[in-house]
Amino acid sequence: MSKSILITGGARSGKSVIAERITERLAAEIQLPPVYIATAQAFDAEMEDRIALHQERRGPEWRTVAEPLNVGQALRDTDGQGPRLLDCLTLWVSNMMHHEREIEAEARALAQAITTQTAPVVLVTNEVGGGIVPENALARRFRDEAGRVNQIIAQACEELYLAVAGYPLKVKPNDIEI
Amino acid sequence: MSKSILITGGARSGKSVIAERITERLAAEIQLPPVYIATAQAFDAEMEDRIALHQERRGPEWRTVAEPLNVGQALRDTDGQGPRLLDCLTLWVSNMMHHEREIEAEARALAQAITTQTAPVVLVTNEVGGGIVPENALARRFRDEAGRVNQIIAQACEELYLAVAGYPLKVKPNDIEI
Amino acid sequence: MSKSILITGGARSGKSVIAERITERLAAEIQLPPVYIATAQAFDAEMEDRIALHQERRGPEWRTVAEPLNVGQALRDTDGQGPRLLDCLTLWVSNMMHHEREIEAEARALAQAITTQTAPVVLVTNEVGGGIVPENALARRFRDEAGRVNQIIAQACEELYLAVAGYPLKVKPNDIEI
Repeated sequence: MSKSILITGGARSGKSVIAERITERLAAEIQLPPVYIATAQAFDAEMEDRIALHQERRGPEWRTVAEPLNVGQALRDTDGQGPRLLDCLTLWVSNMMHHEREIEAEARALAQAITTQTAPVVLVTNEVGGGIVPENALARRFRDEAGRVNQIIAQACEELYLAVAGYPLKVKPNDIEI
Repeated sequence: MSKSILITGGARSGKSVIAERITERLAAEIQLPPVYIATAQAFDAEMEDRIALHQERRGPEWRTVAEPLNVGQALRDTDGQGPRLLDCLTLWVSNMMHHEREIEAEARALAQAITTQTAPVVLVTNEVGGGIVPENALARRFRDEAGRVNQIIAQACEELYLAVAGYPLKVKPNDIEI
Repeated sequence: MSKSILITGGARSGKSVIAERITERLAAEIQLPPVYIATAQAFDAEMEDRIALHQERRGPEWRTVAEPLNVGQALRDTDGQGPRLLDCLTLWVSNMMHHEREIEAEARALAQAITTQTAPVVLVTNEVGGGIVPENALARRFRDEAGRVNQIIAQACEELYLAVAGYPLKVKPNDIEI
């Protein structure tokens, strides 16, 4: 298994569970505990419930680091500790929009950080561009930014999977020459 | 070909036509007529038109059973009659939400029914989580429930396909170890 | 590489870049410059920016033809000039709805035009059916029309790819018998 893996998929497609299993397997291989880098921030009860549910599912062997914005730094800080699971890029994009960060530049910096890690990195992101064009201009901008970030990070990763109903479909590497 | 097959895909991705062809082939193999288990209920003219169009396309060799809620029972009742096509899980989830059923428990019961059938079962469902987060709380809940049901049923099925522009992409089984 | 290729994918999935690279490769193979058939019309500043950005990216070797509606004719008119990239079918559907054209008949005519070309044709379209059902009836109709057009054109093409985070996933041809 390679060292940098991006898992994308729609809402409730099972991408986090797939990413957790991959990270736990990488942890067993290198005999270091898995580290969870959470970009989620609990602004409301719905989000609080979701965060608690995810933590419970992961189990006590995981260490959790909360980092809504500076995820490249979080990767560098945790490089010696074990395989990292960064969940998820879409909330990171949302956080960056809220804080008016330069999203493309930040994504390129994260891509650079990914390619210079010693311990494995698994990242989760969302497919958000598969519906009709949103009427809301902010939603359209979010959709554009999230899609561009997905492309930048996918290019930096050795493997890319699309989650469908709990199962991964390999997108990269493949044998398609274009 | 295996005995339990889930076809997922976006709206108008050709998933029903793919599922019908698979079911007709299974019917020819076991020399029993195909059975259509419809979860759709015609609440309005748009839905009535769609149901009539689907029936016309399937042709006279099909038997049709309407069952908006108790689909596991419908499978058991029709097990000796031929291969069943259950279309679709997403409307079933919608019907269960309307009738305040325990959706996860019902999905697990359906998964159990699928694994204990003698005749083949083909199921159709929808990808509904590929757009931006819906503003409407009910739509968000529906999206979550539908995605979770897809995962539970996909796990129970021997094969899983994603329909894209009328063509199936195999998701399960595959040779990815995670 | 085959002569007719459809690339589908969500918004910002990298489908246009993939299609441009394929078309440039086909152009190099047959030693004729690539031709871009644009269905986009700049009704507002957001669309103008996007069109300008795409043109800049493609570079000066490309010839551009703007054709919002009669795309089959545009293919016939440019058949001797080089490989064509038609970008995109979804805007074409939108234009046809605006001008009250017979969409299915037009799609079948385009499919026919595709299969009778001498020079290669690459087409880009969008996945728009992966979210929840739109509340707006016009959006629902658009989603249905776009999905049906995708199926008709996919059937006419020798190859079909789904773009995910900048990478193509082959959907057709595949070895799935249904």
